[in-house]
Amino acid sequence: VSRTWLGVPDDDPYGVDNLPYGRAVLPDESTHLVVRIGHHVLDVTALGQPASLDELLASGPEEWARGRRAVTRWLTDERFVGEVERHVHPIDDVQLLLPFTVADYVDFYASEQHASNVGRMFRPGAEPLPANWKHVPIGYHGRAGTVIVSGTDVRRPCGQYRDGEQVRFGPTRRLDFEAEVAFVVGTASRLGSGVALTAFAEHVFGVVLLDDWSARDIQSWEYVPLGPFLGKSFATSISPWVTPLPALDAAWRPPPARDPQPLPYLDDAGIDGALDLELEVRINGHVVSRPAFAAMYWTAAQQLAHLTVNGASVRTGDLYASGTVSSDGALGSLLELSWNGTRPVRLADGTDRTFLEDGDEVTITATAPGPAGRLALGEVTGRIRAAAG
Amino acid sequence: VSRTWLGVPDDDPYGVDNLPYGRAVLPDESTHLVVRIGHHVLDVTALGQPASLDELLASGPEEWARGRRAVTRWLTDERFVGEVERHVHPIDDVQLLLPFTVADYVDFYASEQHASNVGRMFRPGAEPLPANWKHVPIGYHGRAGTVIVSGTDVRRPCGQYRDGEQVRFGPTRRLDFEAEVAFVVGTASRLGSGVALTAFAEHVFGVVLLDDWSARDIQSWEYVPLGPFLGKSFATSISPWVTPLPALDAAWRPPPARDPQPLPYLDDAGIDGALDLELEVRINGHVVSRPAFAAMYWTAAQQLAHLTVNGASVRTGDLYASGTVSSDGALGSLLELSWNGTRPVRLADGTDRTFLEDGDEVTITATAPGPAGRLALGEVTGRIRAAAG
Repeated sequence: VSRTWLGVPDDDPYGVDNLPYGRAVLPDESTHLVVRIGHHVLDVTALGQPASLDELLASGPEEWARGRRAVTRWLTDERFVGEVERHVHPIDDVQLLLPFTVADYVDFYASEQHASNVGRMFRPGAEPLPANWKHVPIGYHGRAGTVIVSGTDVRRPCGQYRDGEQVRFGPTRRLDFEAEVAFVVGTASRLGSGVALTAFAEHVFGVVLLDDWSARDIQSWEYVPLGPFLGKSFATSISPWVTPLPALDAAWRPPPARDPQPLPYLDDAGIDGALDLELEVRINGHVVSRPAFAAMYWTAAQQLAHLTVNGASVRTGDLYASGTVSSDGALGSLLELSWNGTRPVRLADGTDRTFLEDGDEVTITATAPGPAGRLALGEVTGRIRAAAG
Repeated sequence: VSRTWLGVPDDDPYGVDNLPYGRAVLPDESTHLVVRIGHHVLDVTALGQPASLDELLASGPEEWARGRRAVTRWLTDERFVGEVERHVHPIDDVQLLLPFTVADYVDFYASEQHASNVGRMFRPGAEPLPANWKHVPIGYHGRAGTVIVSGTDVRRPCGQYRDGEQVRFGPTRRLDFEAEVAFVVGTASRLGSGVALTAFAEHVFGVVLLDDWSARDIQSWEYVPLGPFLGKSFATSISPWVTPLPALDAAWRPPPARDPQPLPYLDDAGIDGALDLELEVRINGHVVSRPAFAAMYWTAAQQLAHLTVNGASVRTGDLYASGTVSSDGALGSLLELSWNGTRPVRLADGTDRTFLEDGDEVTITATAPGPAGRLALGEVTGRIRAAAG
């Protein structure tokens, strides 16, 4: 079945129920807001929509809905073929850019499996989860200026790390990925007032996949007492496509049970706040994990409510990430997969990895249930380059 | 002595050797780039300089020097009176705004006195300084979107804190200031390459004073393991005036001795990287501390070198702060002054403070040695409003 006159099947991962937004340099060298349909992009700026995703994000939920209705109509009503067809380009003919200007970037730590694994590795003998973890959606601010678009190479960072009793400086020896799902804020909030759980969809425009590249040796030496800094700030990759929330209408699920009961501002009883996304992580094309996002302890709405409960405002372009997505038997980082480097991971090509090697390419993809089949979220990929000489 | 035809004495705190930049709404309601001279502002946009400090920051060190020479000439050469005088406004006739658009905001932790005091309070019996502290200029990313201009009220934040074994939610009971000095990046750097110690002045445009408002109860409950988050993110105030580096030419001093020797990328032997700024903190007009900035263990150039040594880029508008400035007997936070609330601080009006009360106004000022007298840095002030009902 294809509702589009382009012939893209409705159950295509980028069919007419998906329609993610991106920003592309087009064959005529203009940079426009585009929508993906199958292996094509539609230049929606040429059809009167905003010039950039930044502008669309700022326009608010009514405009988001109106824009999505218009794109759907253009692609499904044959009366628009004449007007629209010349603004459709094969995806290989355009260059995809960072889809929006990142304002503040926050990274959470919402997978119980991941946080427990990290606790077991780094605080053996103690309780795996920090005492605050089931009360507070733990997060920290990351570096917005080094968020890069999928496909950009990642240079192995240099930094300080501890080697026995010695402090050394050099290229990280423990370079890792973290598979994450991140949320893009469209509508700003006011300084001094919070965003309630129920106001999530008024503020959040959509979803990207995110790779929180991490240098574990740099991170473990620097992070006490003020948290991760240079171990993370060298690069964070996001997918070029932002999936609007309405594309995920069929993907909401009840969150996991919580104990203790969250404080009232985090109490989401009755809200299907968990997203049923199935992630897949590949190294050089070989699948290493398929974590389930629905199992995350804290949801995106809880994270936004927490982020703003102290009166902090969000801005158009704010990006906040889930933290590593690890679920039972499906771990979202090499730190966990190789148990801090002690159990090498065998790839299908017969090679072993504890951490990433120069030349390795990490790709994160995800799908969500849609009306006609599973929708794809935009993939995020990056290849490791050798450290600067 | 006055070199200016305006009659502002050369040894005025805002005399002709100072000339900080700001952004102001002028009597005709235009928003322009302005320079402060005495109790006046000069509308430099009207005289052909950039429309905003953002634009000036991005233009690079040669333009910064050219612009400063032009302003000096306009104010000191009587041939310009006719052209320039109508663009001079009394400071009380303009509204000062956040001087520039903050890109990424980083907060360091560079005072040995402060870090040791915090260690003694929160980790009694252990070494006061974390093991990494004299190797790594410890820092973390803060929230750029809640950096506000001096004079903006600060609403007491709500959040989670621990009360004995109970987790509670409500207005912070331990609201604090932190007196800091912060640096404004003009020239961006390239992703993948660092900024050497000697390239500091090619990238950094100038200096602001900063109040890193802190909710100590929220912070202490949330900060393990990923660092401060909601305990800081509700507001960070900066002065409306950015003092350009050339105004501080007479203020550079040798840094304190370091042991152990810093790694090569942080080794500033032979560089006078410490700034001789004398800070003063007042609560409701009563002086509570006069910390000396020159004693900070890590300098601004070391912080920039560290921030970028992993290849992270800086952008125009990046802001990075020193961390609380505490020196011998002159402490830069109430946390230290009241020793975590155990020793109330008596103000000159006879009232006591452990932490800040609603209605309190905190003001941070600073001076630096100049060619003709001490120059003032722009003050930063904020008044505490009651928590949202």
